[in-house]
Amino acid sequence: MLEKVDLTKKVSKEEYKKKMEQLEVKLGRLQRECKALGIPVLIVFEGFGAAGKGLQIGRLIQSMDPRGFEVHPIKNETEEERMHPFMWRFWTKTPARGRIAIFDGSWYRRVLIDRFEKRTKSKDLPAAFHSINSFEQQLAEDGNLIIKLFLDIDKKEQKKRFDKLEKNEETAWRVSQGDRERNARYDEYASMMEDMLFKTDTDYAPWTIIESMDRRFAALKIYTTVIKAMADQIEKVKEQNEEKAAKKAFISKDTSAADDPVGEIAREADVQMKELQVSILSKADLSLSYTREEYKEKLDKLQKKLEKLHGELYRRRIPVILGFEGWDAGGKGGAIKRLTDRMDPRGYVVNPTASPNDIEKAHHYLWRFWRAMPKDGHVAIFDRTWYGRVMVERIEGFCTTEEWKRAYKEINDMEKDLYDAGAIVIKFWMHIDKDEQERRFKERQENPEKRWKITDEDWRNREKWDQYEDAVNEMLMRTSTDYAPWVVVEGNSKYYARVKVLKTVVDAIEARLKED
Amino acid sequence: MLEKVDLTKKVSKEEYKKKMEQLEVKLGRLQRECKALGIPVLIVFEGFGAAGKGLQIGRLIQSMDPRGFEVHPIKNETEEERMHPFMWRFWTKTPARGRIAIFDGSWYRRVLIDRFEKRTKSKDLPAAFHSINSFEQQLAEDGNLIIKLFLDIDKKEQKKRFDKLEKNEETAWRVSQGDRERNARYDEYASMMEDMLFKTDTDYAPWTIIESMDRRFAALKIYTTVIKAMADQIEKVKEQNEEKAAKKAFISKDTSAADDPVGEIAREADVQMKELQVSILSKADLSLSYTREEYKEKLDKLQKKLEKLHGELYRRRIPVILGFEGWDAGGKGGAIKRLTDRMDPRGYVVNPTASPNDIEKAHHYLWRFWRAMPKDGHVAIFDRTWYGRVMVERIEGFCTTEEWKRAYKEINDMEKDLYDAGAIVIKFWMHIDKDEQERRFKERQENPEKRWKITDEDWRNREKWDQYEDAVNEMLMRTSTDYAPWVVVEGNSKYYARVKVLKTVVDAIEARLKED
Repeated sequence: MLEKVDLTKKVSKEEYKKKMEQLEVKLGRLQRECKALGIPVLIVFEGFGAAGKGLQIGRLIQSMDPRGFEVHPIKNETEEERMHPFMWRFWTKTPARGRIAIFDGSWYRRVLIDRFEKRTKSKDLPAAFHSINSFEQQLAEDGNLIIKLFLDIDKKEQKKRFDKLEKNEETAWRVSQGDRERNARYDEYASMMEDMLFKTDTDYAPWTIIESMDRRFAALKIYTTVIKAMADQIEKVKEQNEEKAAKKAFISKDTSAADDPVGEIAREADVQMKELQVSILSKADLSLSYTREEYKEKLDKLQKKLEKLHGELYRRRIPVILGFEGWDAGGKGGAIKRLTDRMDPRGYVVNPTASPNDIEKAHHYLWRFWRAMPKDGHVAIFDRTWYGRVMVERIEGFCTTEEWKRAYKEINDMEKDLYDAGAIVIKFWMHIDKDEQERRFKERQENPEKRWKITDEDWRNREKWDQYEDAVNEMLMRTSTDYAPWVVVEGNSKYYARVKVLKTVVDAIEARLKED
Repeated sequence: MLEKVDLTKKVSKEEYKKKMEQLEVKLGRLQRECKALGIPVLIVFEGFGAAGKGLQIGRLIQSMDPRGFEVHPIKNETEEERMHPFMWRFWTKTPARGRIAIFDGSWYRRVLIDRFEKRTKSKDLPAAFHSINSFEQQLAEDGNLIIKLFLDIDKKEQKKRFDKLEKNEETAWRVSQGDRERNARYDEYASMMEDMLFKTDTDYAPWTIIESMDRRFAALKIYTTVIKAMADQIEKVKEQNEEKAAKKAFISKDTSAADDPVGEIAREADVQMKELQVSILSKADLSLSYTREEYKEKLDKLQKKLEKLHGELYRRRIPVILGFEGWDAGGKGGAIKRLTDRMDPRGYVVNPTASPNDIEKAHHYLWRFWRAMPKDGHVAIFDRTWYGRVMVERIEGFCTTEEWKRAYKEINDMEKDLYDAGAIVIKFWMHIDKDEQERRFKERQENPEKRWKITDEDWRNREKWDQYEDAVNEMLMRTSTDYAPWVVVEGNSKYYARVKVLKTVVDAIEARLKED
């Protein structure tokens, strides 16, 4: 999840002040609602050293009623704590109904710092993750709201902050030897963070990444995340209470007409959250392009290379899975064509993914993709993929909110299974901007040869561009993993896009062959 | 779960015939209902070799419509299958909505036979269990009903069956070298089975142990299990459908009055299931007793031993957790008194567990027990325990069915955490029969010194003896583990009971001290 994070987001002082005022009022109000409904809330702060956990916690509690929360700083275990099972000190600190417990550091220590410093041994990691997930699941099922915030800064920024702290006599003590060590081996530590995020990002206790290079931005995102999570939980609990009451009375209340200020807050937070959401797509530099000559030359070279590598894959029995998603007219077809031009047709299959047929609909949505997974040594290319679940199915309401929310984990699990079985797994997002799409749509309509490629549905989908963009950004964030990365392909120049796809595949195969 | 299984249950031919006739009609009917409602069903047969999987599957499908199911025998992978990710062949065999897939052997191979034969390496086990649980959870959340049957026979019976098969020319080929090996190392294989049952007995796909020494008994239990699971799922789906419809119509239907034949089948299956349920309690030999002289002598010796061991525990920093449950007047107090008589009072605490107070009620039910867990080197004795969740709370309706059902796993997880942190964990069930209880109740009432010990509630609980017995049997089965075993203490003789408790504790401590 971390690799796709855009850390450059900033907020001006004026904007910050204006927004914060409203957020503070809302948070105070939601705290009172949680208390009235007896909802216990856990807020976990984790992340890189010097990312600002202490500062942000201070900022967050400013608008809370101090009689309703505790802050638990989690440092090295005390003598007393060391003499108990690891989870003991966290169980004893779980909040009572209606109260808020804020954790500055948490049970994640054991799979982060303690792992880094080898106090947690590799062989104990599976049990540690099992404990953590079991703990969170038990609390969530008992009605606890668990909000997990991961404060992210980059290596350079971290070093800068440590230097600054050390220069000042009064703060120098805050930078430990361990902090310096983790900064020096930042990448190694970050990969443990990544592993932790993968294993504990659950539907009952999801992580939110807080880009913390800019403290104002971070504060806004933390407030918004907490507000949204609380408002959603309040709505859920109220609905459940109403259903229970209705069941008793044998009539169900029409809630749609009810006055619902918390619902309003939830919706506003939704909008605000989207504004704060990191747009991975917006980072793509769509001006990248190649001339026809560059393209011809590169294409030819890469295709020849791939031809050879394809044979080598077959001999070494390595399966390859390539997924293509992207905007309509984003260039999926063209890229796939150039990719397979010189590959031996007995060694690959292109699976076009249409709407599911009746038999497919009668199964789990992943069933048809599992069926199409390649044998060892073969390449399976998917023209549209299982990611339909979190894009078109999400947006068109073909599945429920719970269904698409849990799909991220289901998909990550599937891709991990494939990777564990030895496969190379890469997903491409063919990216173009809205203007370029319009140009291509029109060109298709005007060209009798290409007219079949464009339908009314394409135009309808285009109207939902913003909704799709949100969904795609969330998808890229939640499902780009070490073992199955997303590659955003800058597609305004078809030449550039096709070469990038080929080169990515060639590089990935070469890297794998070297490993073995 | 396996150690508590009573394999001696038998059914007469007459009883079998009579019951089976009714069960067959019910199963046929439920299959049609599942089809109509579009419920996909997976039935998994696992267990020891020669336990009768093939035979029982043949028996089960006799009353099914052959157009509605497939049987998938899962043997060694084919060439084709070996060239795909492990879960591929199971994903592709998942049933369509309304159909039944029966697995003769299954995805559990990988953590059973393949593990035993070292084709699955230890380091790959966590990923394998993760895959299995993820697969089952995804299917369950998608509406699949997953019924997992574990056919259990003992080492001797297995050997007898293998011998018989081998004697006959026509069946000799069915006994493989591997079968013989697994029989020879039965205990080792059984402990892998145990580990598998612990890690995959989930609320969305629970295991049922089928005692398979007697084939008629096994067939009845399999039919009853399948019928109960199907009927429950049908009820659940119907209820969901009604709720959806009611939500649309803004009125909720009063289902209590509705004609509900499947509900009837579910209730009947419930009763039948209980009859078939293995009664662990009934195995206890309550005639066991000691004379006063034997008692005095043994008690004195054991108490002296424990006194020493207690000091040793403290020096070695080993925590001990002893839970006491049992029938009212079962002798918990007396046993705890004799246990602690000579222990250093600075080194142990007895925690009496009453109804939760307001603060305790405001937390997760395990919270108050976590708080009371002992420091390293200390002994915590619980007079009544966290098992209240699956006994009194279950029977009195203080928690929902989902809550007590998932409690087995929550409790197993907690005890595993404690064990992983180095603790010795033992749970005692103080067992007496109903007559003995009456005798003791009356004695208490007649004795002015003891009258305070007996209340109206005790008499009320006594009326629910049968309900408690069912709950206790299920609890013993689902939560007796290698790392935290249940010990049933034959308690009609108080002398015998007290000595057994002391001896169990002494033995467990001595065994642990030898390990380190």
